[in-house]
Amino acid sequence: MRILHHLPLSPFSRKVRLALAEKRIPFELRVEKVWERREEFLAVNPACTVPVLQEANGLSIVDSSAICEYLDEAYPDMPLLGRTLAERAEVRRLVAWFDQKFYAEVTRNLLFEKQMKRLLGRGNPDAASIRAGYANLKPHLEYIGWLAETRAWLAGPALSLADLAAAAQLSTLDYIGDLDWSISDGAKDWYARVKSRPSFRGLLADRVSGVTPPPHYADLDF
Amino acid sequence: MRILHHLPLSPFSRKVRLALAEKRIPFELRVEKVWERREEFLAVNPACTVPVLQEANGLSIVDSSAICEYLDEAYPDMPLLGRTLAERAEVRRLVAWFDQKFYAEVTRNLLFEKQMKRLLGRGNPDAASIRAGYANLKPHLEYIGWLAETRAWLAGPALSLADLAAAAQLSTLDYIGDLDWSISDGAKDWYARVKSRPSFRGLLADRVSGVTPPPHYADLDF
Repeated sequence: MRILHHLPLSPFSRKVRLALAEKRIPFELRVEKVWERREEFLAVNPACTVPVLQEANGLSIVDSSAICEYLDEAYPDMPLLGRTLAERAEVRRLVAWFDQKFYAEVTRNLLFEKQMKRLLGRGNPDAASIRAGYANLKPHLEYIGWLAETRAWLAGPALSLADLAAAAQLSTLDYIGDLDWSISDGAKDWYARVKSRPSFRGLLADRVSGVTPPPHYADLDF
Repeated sequence: MRILHHLPLSPFSRKVRLALAEKRIPFELRVEKVWERREEFLAVNPACTVPVLQEANGLSIVDSSAICEYLDEAYPDMPLLGRTLAERAEVRRLVAWFDQKFYAEVTRNLLFEKQMKRLLGRGNPDAASIRAGYANLKPHLEYIGWLAETRAWLAGPALSLADLAAAAQLSTLDYIGDLDWSISDGAKDWYARVKSRPSFRGLLADRVSGVTPPPHYADLDF
């Protein structure tokens, strides 16, 4: 069976889970506590990060971008990267935007400071980082709202990996109750559309020990 | 004419320059001082990062990974990502390793602290970051040496984007005189092989105002 090594609140694992589900590729989830630095896992991925996808034939794919590129090459039905060169450039630009810029400016400042530090015993949350995370959230939600209002989906006329990358980041923040949806109606409407897709059900069923999501987390009419 | 918007010491710009040169795709370099936040550039890339590749037909590709994926799709001669799914997974794993892990653990700690902070007027270098950068360099060079000694090139039997991503990072550190090549003979021999390729000539001719590289920087028998 195909196995995805993941962590429930890793936005990069969530992006891959959504991509697999959109492509209707069956997989089994296995939690990898990367901080334990398990030897068999290090042998597969010396960077000791999730997600890692292990195919039944033994092939392991490391890194969420590598996995998503692989999925579109190995399972071309329901392409997620776009068809033309221009579409693909725009999808990949936005995936990099959410994976790198949104993650560094928002997700890491909130999720890492408020959850991961406690979990890893790395001390108290840094108040300045949390303030920066909240401040950066506003222009990011407005950008998502602007994209969603000028296009059918974030990267163009079709749902793409850009939507999944964005929704993966937002869903982790929504889980810890850190999303102020009143900032942008456009972003909220777009997220409601993504969230109601069957591919999202697995994420909405996630529960992390010690962290209860707000009541609207799994509500499709939030 | 095809234009690459870049900065001379940006390792991600250097990776793309090497990829273009290996594929013998002609291009013109244009320095983009991203800290000036030029409006025409922001319209193309709101993240305001280099590299950005502008094709003669008007298509712009933003983000070094998006550019490299694009180049292998649009110009499939001299493929840089590998041929089989397994080869491609290994090339992309290592590109992510150098772009993300090596950059965060080594390049940013040394290049950003010692050069970019001064250039941008962001205060003094942080001594702890510089110490961490030097400490992290050793295991990274040893890993490169181990890969180069067990394979013909870093990702397997053929030169790939993994070699270019690694050499791009190392070349910026070599420029500022921060590479201790005595750490790993394997890494040094591999770098000498990459450095003597015609694709490297442009990088070795770079000069940045106010920073003189050490005499061995452009020496093929360093």
